[in-house]
Amino acid sequence: MSEDLRNAALEYHANPIPGKISIELTKPAETARHLALAYSPGVAEPVREIAKDPENAYKYTGKGNLVAVISNGSAILGLGNLGALPSKPVMEGKSLLFKRFAGINSIDIEVDSESPQAFIDTVKRIAISFGGINLEDIKAPECFDIERELIELCSIPVFHDDQHGTAIVTAAGMLNALELAGKSISDVSMVCLGAGAAAIACSKLLISCGMKPENIYMLDRKGVIHSGRTDLNQYKAAFANETSKRTLDEAIDAADVFLGLSGPNLLSPEQLKKMAPNPIVFACSNPDPEIKPELALSVRDDVIMATGRSDYPNQVNNVLGFPFIFRGALDVRATAINEEMKLAAVHALKNLAKEPVPEDVVNAYGGKPLSFGREYIIPKPMDIRLLNVVSAAVAKAAVDSGVAKLPYPKHYPLLAIGDIK
Amino acid sequence: MSEDLRNAALEYHANPIPGKISIELTKPAETARHLALAYSPGVAEPVREIAKDPENAYKYTGKGNLVAVISNGSAILGLGNLGALPSKPVMEGKSLLFKRFAGINSIDIEVDSESPQAFIDTVKRIAISFGGINLEDIKAPECFDIERELIELCSIPVFHDDQHGTAIVTAAGMLNALELAGKSISDVSMVCLGAGAAAIACSKLLISCGMKPENIYMLDRKGVIHSGRTDLNQYKAAFANETSKRTLDEAIDAADVFLGLSGPNLLSPEQLKKMAPNPIVFACSNPDPEIKPELALSVRDDVIMATGRSDYPNQVNNVLGFPFIFRGALDVRATAINEEMKLAAVHALKNLAKEPVPEDVVNAYGGKPLSFGREYIIPKPMDIRLLNVVSAAVAKAAVDSGVAKLPYPKHYPLLAIGDIK
Repeated sequence: MSEDLRNAALEYHANPIPGKISIELTKPAETARHLALAYSPGVAEPVREIAKDPENAYKYTGKGNLVAVISNGSAILGLGNLGALPSKPVMEGKSLLFKRFAGINSIDIEVDSESPQAFIDTVKRIAISFGGINLEDIKAPECFDIERELIELCSIPVFHDDQHGTAIVTAAGMLNALELAGKSISDVSMVCLGAGAAAIACSKLLISCGMKPENIYMLDRKGVIHSGRTDLNQYKAAFANETSKRTLDEAIDAADVFLGLSGPNLLSPEQLKKMAPNPIVFACSNPDPEIKPELALSVRDDVIMATGRSDYPNQVNNVLGFPFIFRGALDVRATAINEEMKLAAVHALKNLAKEPVPEDVVNAYGGKPLSFGREYIIPKPMDIRLLNVVSAAVAKAAVDSGVAKLPYPKHYPLLAIGDIK
Repeated sequence: MSEDLRNAALEYHANPIPGKISIELTKPAETARHLALAYSPGVAEPVREIAKDPENAYKYTGKGNLVAVISNGSAILGLGNLGALPSKPVMEGKSLLFKRFAGINSIDIEVDSESPQAFIDTVKRIAISFGGINLEDIKAPECFDIERELIELCSIPVFHDDQHGTAIVTAAGMLNALELAGKSISDVSMVCLGAGAAAIACSKLLISCGMKPENIYMLDRKGVIHSGRTDLNQYKAAFANETSKRTLDEAIDAADVFLGLSGPNLLSPEQLKKMAPNPIVFACSNPDPEIKPELALSVRDDVIMATGRSDYPNQVNNVLGFPFIFRGALDVRATAINEEMKLAAVHALKNLAKEPVPEDVVNAYGGKPLSFGREYIIPKPMDIRLLNVVSAAVAKAAVDSGVAKLPYPKHYPLLAIGDIK
């Protein structure tokens, strides 16, 4: 990050008032009459109605459009376990994105405890306040248990975005990259460098999309995760491969896909050269990718690249996912965000990238034409169509899979863009 | 509550969108550059700064102007223990009032647990997210333990408004009523009907203001709390009186003050007649007072009355207190709201009632002139001067009593109104 960006970021956060979000009134509060309606004595009426039927909370309070962004700060961005309070700017940032991209009210909650059980207990008890819970920046492997338990304990959507948001956007881009490379997902081999929350979730979702588990070589800091290793937690063990490959050098040989969720510059030009023709390289380490696009393309020009950065083509950015996934889930009052909904988001994103890009989106990204191809495999965050297309697809999947309490909303037009399946 | 008010309250809460508050952006988020500052990669900078020094959270996040309104719904208004979710409209209402009257961002959190320890654990763990905690609608006697423990565990202000907010506003009105009645607080006898959180906090604060404990007769559902009773929890037992009085009828005889925090119509005209000359009656049961003002005044014309209602003179309304108490505490980053700050709020409110009332305040209440006297012993909620006067007094007391991390703010003018002590 440049000195300029660092200073600008501090200035942005500090002035003119600290932070990025505020809480505002949605109802008038100017007269004594207003106060009698908003508070005592009028407020007793909605209280009574909710006591009669908890579903009335969606009618008389903001619960239905309120998502809590909750972290314990144990894995903040790529910065590590810095604790609850330092995670607050990230969580407020997520809340800002929820509102900006999907009109969802969102508040950040930092949980000051290293204990997964204490975290679970805490979130479980406050969950009733919200319409959904976005878990964030919680380290693996605890994040898996935490999410699984909370999904069981809560009757509202609980979604660990570092896992599933990343996986959904990655899978959408990957499916398009495979199409452009002329490869079938059921045939390709993939090296996944990194074995954290995002890596495991991405690999799982790609398997749901058709990738063969035996074709995935996942590497942690000790090398390839294989069936001979005895140091694996259950989540990594699920990806243990029957293979003699031990190193990235060995695994990358003839691989079709490289998925990097690890650290900067960990894929060398020599390793890239060893990949199969038309290799797909998702170098998602942020801000510095596993290999820089200009370096990769100087080594071989048949590579299809994506990164986590906004200053290169094909940014794998969670903001393409979580705002719209929650929007769709909230709009049909889904009790969970299930696999069907995640896959619907994948396909909606994938298909949207094949549609003609409106002029305003092109202009927002410098005016250079955007059309489906090696430099445009995934929609851009500023594409206003995302709100309609992805949310609608998720809502429809929730209804079709039986987790929605409300019907498919009338405010969604028929899915006009693409043949979203 | 009238049918009209009930329907209007439901309509107010439901339309055009459910609830009363929203979360909005305070920073621009329109361009890719903005997003790079607000979220990845720029957000890493404030994260690092807060990891270096937790106080930087006040510089780079909204923590310093964010108050959580937290309840378990165990004593909602006068409606009883209805549970966490039904309390949400009340808590959102409180958040609305925080913003409307003091510019404080406030979010409601409902804790779904009947266990006081679980409540304490939960609030303790999420407290780091906020600049202050307003506890609300938690039943006695658990509320006393919960507040005491949380004050010990948290380094931010924790304030149970049902206790202290009520007590502060009541004490301010009471001091003025006593002055108008020509009575000294150290001489008067008081009957306190009710022995819940508010009753105990009011009685304690009145003792801090000079009332003699032996002159207070507190009554619960079983009658006078006296030293012969063996059924008292420690909080009630602290008010056990060495007396032969057993009933309200006996206690009210020649009493100077009646403080009702109980239920409708529990003070009879006959009982009122037995009180001392110039009796003070605070009939604060809501919405129906212990005795209606028109009935009381038809029985004897020397009574000074206050109620919890906006449609009678002298409304004892918590909104006169909590927004400004927190405003003052947050403005000097107080680590607690201590007795000095509470007493400062009492005296600021008391003195403000003696100042000439601005025309706009008079107009907001129907145009009838307001001046210090039997029908105006306490300021009106719509009095904009409250924000300056009460907040400034609380901030000053925090600084003077050594709980403030910041100096007395420059944005407060010298206390221009009254001789606030």
